Amino acid sequence: MNESEFLQSYRKDAYDRPSVTVDLVLLTIRDGSLQVLLTRRQEHPFQGRLALPGVFVGTEETLDAAAERALSQKTGLSGIYFEQLYTWGAPDRDPRMRVISVSYCALVPWESIAHPNRESEFFPAQDMAEASDLAFDHAQIIRYALERIRNKVSYTDIAFSLVGEEFTLPELQKVYEIILGTPLYKANFRKKIAEQIEETDKMATGGKHRPSRIYRKKG
Amino acid sequence: MNESEFLQSYRKDAYDRPSVTVDLVLLTIRDGSLQVLLTRRQEHPFQGRLALPGVFVGTEETLDAAAERALSQKTGLSGIYFEQLYTWGAPDRDPRMRVISVSYCALVPWESIAHPNRESEFFPAQDMAEASDLAFDHAQIIRYALERIRNKVSYTDIAFSLVGEEFTLPELQKVYEIILGTPLYKANFRKKIAEQIEETDKMATGGKHRPSRIYRKKG
Repeated sequence: MNESEFLQSYRKDAYDRPSVTVDLVLLTIRDGSLQVLLTRRQEHPFQGRLALPGVFVGTEETLDAAAERALSQKTGLSGIYFEQLYTWGAPDRDPRMRVISVSYCALVPWESIAHPNRESEFFPAQDMAEASDLAFDHAQIIRYALERIRNKVSYTDIAFSLVGEEFTLPELQKVYEIILGTPLYKANFRKKIAEQIEETDKMATGGKHRPSRIYRKKG
Repeated sequence: MNESEFLQSYRKDAYDRPSVTVDLVLLTIRDGSLQVLLTRRQEHPFQGRLALPGVFVGTEETLDAAAERALSQKTGLSGIYFEQLYTWGAPDRDPRMRVISVSYCALVPWESIAHPNRESEFFPAQDMAEASDLAFDHAQIIRYALERIRNKVSYTDIAFSLVGEEFTLPELQKVYEIILGTPLYKANFRKKIAEQIEETDKMATGGKHRPSRIYRKKG
């Protein structure tokens, strides 16, 4: 059955109520860039295309529970805290029928998600946000997630979750720069985060650079 | 037909797909407090109870369009920009059937919404957030909206939309205090907003107080 035959058979079963899915935008920093976890679609529509991991919401399932299920079924991962991002409802966003998607987003350290199953893989998030060949409106959802994360990094402490409990200021600055997608002036950066951090009595040595003071987030 | 008879008849028609609604949290400042627009439900379930204005999303309708329609049909108002707030999907949140609600929120000057239709009325938002007799999970949605607005007032310029183009600092401080629900120290407040405002060459006179400098938002 090709995609157009599939879609014709599908419409016969369509009700006048929408179906609801959850889709996950799982972001991490890896190899110096923000990356997003995608799966390759096994079925129509968009068979063979890259897509966000997602599932249809079950009749008796909360949205959060559906997000957890999407994570484990589609990526083999678990135990990641997702925040609701935005709900997408353009009537033609799914060629099968009306499907409303509640998207969820998480930004987590690479170490905690390094081993998804074989169907899932990380891709540079900015490239995927601009890609024209992703399934559904998933490139748009990734664009929205990146915009949200860039806003949030300025007024929340999400960047700290990516550096571990103790860090040097160059490490923390690098996380901000990767998320914002732009280099920052050292002096401005340090002034801006000064109130959120405190010195430890440790120094980081090694590498080609001179030792850096190790900091931690203020309690 | 009483509510339990109604619900029994309703379930016969239930599909295994959810219905989707939009619900609006329209907030304003009036009489020195944050108020929310509610309508009294004409039908089961929760007949006679106060509820957020809302509609079922039409088959060919975007979520944003449904929000506009809810506003005009339920309140008689129009032309208000709503932001999506959160999507609510607890399986038992509606006694009829599975209904997922996409909530929208707006915070606008009282003058622009002073005349809703007779079915709608403003109520103190904090009281409604704590009320136990609102329809559905609408008290919870109002709680969430208030929390979001209180966060946003610290890192966005939403407070300025409630004072007009020119304002005195006591007026602006009052808006912050009403939204945050707590008095602020004048010196701290002025230090915090200093970068966002600029002086005009005008003074506000009248009233019992000495004249106040008039400010505007920085371009």
